[in-house]
Amino acid sequence: MSAVRALFFDVFGTVVDWRSSISEFGAAMATAENWKLQIDWTEFAEAWRAEYAPSMVEVKSGRRPYARLDILHRENLDRIIPRFGLDGLDESQRQALNLAWHKLNPWADSVPGLTRLKRQFILATMSNGNTALMVNMAKHAGLPWDCILGAEPAQHYKPDPETYLTGADWLNLPPSECMMVAAHNSDLAAARALGFKTAFIARPTEYGPAQAADLAAAEAWDFIAGSMTELADQLHCA
Amino acid sequence: MSAVRALFFDVFGTVVDWRSSISEFGAAMATAENWKLQIDWTEFAEAWRAEYAPSMVEVKSGRRPYARLDILHRENLDRIIPRFGLDGLDESQRQALNLAWHKLNPWADSVPGLTRLKRQFILATMSNGNTALMVNMAKHAGLPWDCILGAEPAQHYKPDPETYLTGADWLNLPPSECMMVAAHNSDLAAARALGFKTAFIARPTEYGPAQAADLAAAEAWDFIAGSMTELADQLHCA
Repeated sequence: MSAVRALFFDVFGTVVDWRSSISEFGAAMATAENWKLQIDWTEFAEAWRAEYAPSMVEVKSGRRPYARLDILHRENLDRIIPRFGLDGLDESQRQALNLAWHKLNPWADSVPGLTRLKRQFILATMSNGNTALMVNMAKHAGLPWDCILGAEPAQHYKPDPETYLTGADWLNLPPSECMMVAAHNSDLAAARALGFKTAFIARPTEYGPAQAADLAAAEAWDFIAGSMTELADQLHCA
Repeated sequence: MSAVRALFFDVFGTVVDWRSSISEFGAAMATAENWKLQIDWTEFAEAWRAEYAPSMVEVKSGRRPYARLDILHRENLDRIIPRFGLDGLDESQRQALNLAWHKLNPWADSVPGLTRLKRQFILATMSNGNTALMVNMAKHAGLPWDCILGAEPAQHYKPDPETYLTGADWLNLPPSECMMVAAHNSDLAAARALGFKTAFIARPTEYGPAQAADLAAAEAWDFIAGSMTELADQLHCA
């Protein structure tokens, strides 16, 4: 693995726990503003996230020009709030709630693991999240990125090849010197097809106790770890 | 200044001392490889840098598509080496020497000042240097950037408006919430014309003891400081 120079990270699910973070953010906002509603905020978080993949289809197909994830998140929010009796939220409340994605909390091992990995590798995001979202999240969560890459630089969403390849190109590295780190087998498969090295981090509770997919590595990835610190161990990063 | 959320930094000259760094890098390479030549490496550094602005003219005019600064630096190197008797450098030596720009050393106050500023602001590069150059330099010099912005994301060189405006847009901030920090009055003037706040850092020896330009602030910039730590003082960053 001495050839690997840069690690590219999936972020939602791999580095941060969107499900509990969105749930806690919504619950805290409801309490602070004294909303008169009983809402299952975990269900709300899952419903919002369920709109994520469908919302990118139009962009991936080329029928819609690239629109950053903040915009898609907002459209998805407007789509789901009637189901939770939240139609009455005004514009500023919707904007505030949409920024929940900028304030996601890391898994407990993420910052310790990334801090060790950063001593030996370039750490870049390879997320569908846009630059502002990634930067604000890093400030909030203490994520020590060297560089924000991914969908916005490429103006393409993963798993479009342009997303991964623009990241490698901007670091002036061949894909063989880049390693994709993700909790999702499909993300690793897309990166491997382009020549990236691959590392799977198991996040078996990303979708809660009933999670059915991505419980384990589906292929013989170059590295398979149970946490970011375990990956740091495997890569001999003290 | 409470409205300012992000600081955008010119890098060459403002944060790092390219003149002494290039000079020392060349001298060290000549010693290590036992070159039989007497070279004034400060003159060499100045000659290389003198090609910088002219080399961007074709891109700025639109006659040449955006080409990253690593490529322009290499073309400029090939242009100047005959003057120093270095025509005999082979391809791998030229590539190695070109990476000197990735290994520039910070002014003594840069890392302490940036570290303090980072606690309160988003710190982004706003350099004509390309992403790989900026990332490698940050790893080398310990520069704590939150985000690499500038010429490559915009595919435009400063002072084209697109360069500054793409940076603000990717952080999802209006120009009024962004402040350009630079040792060059022209850079600040370009940013101010777009609505950015401005901070001048005096670097009166960037071009050596005979420096004639940018010795002092040429306009009433929002902040005028003698070092990065003095700027941190002025912005009340402990």
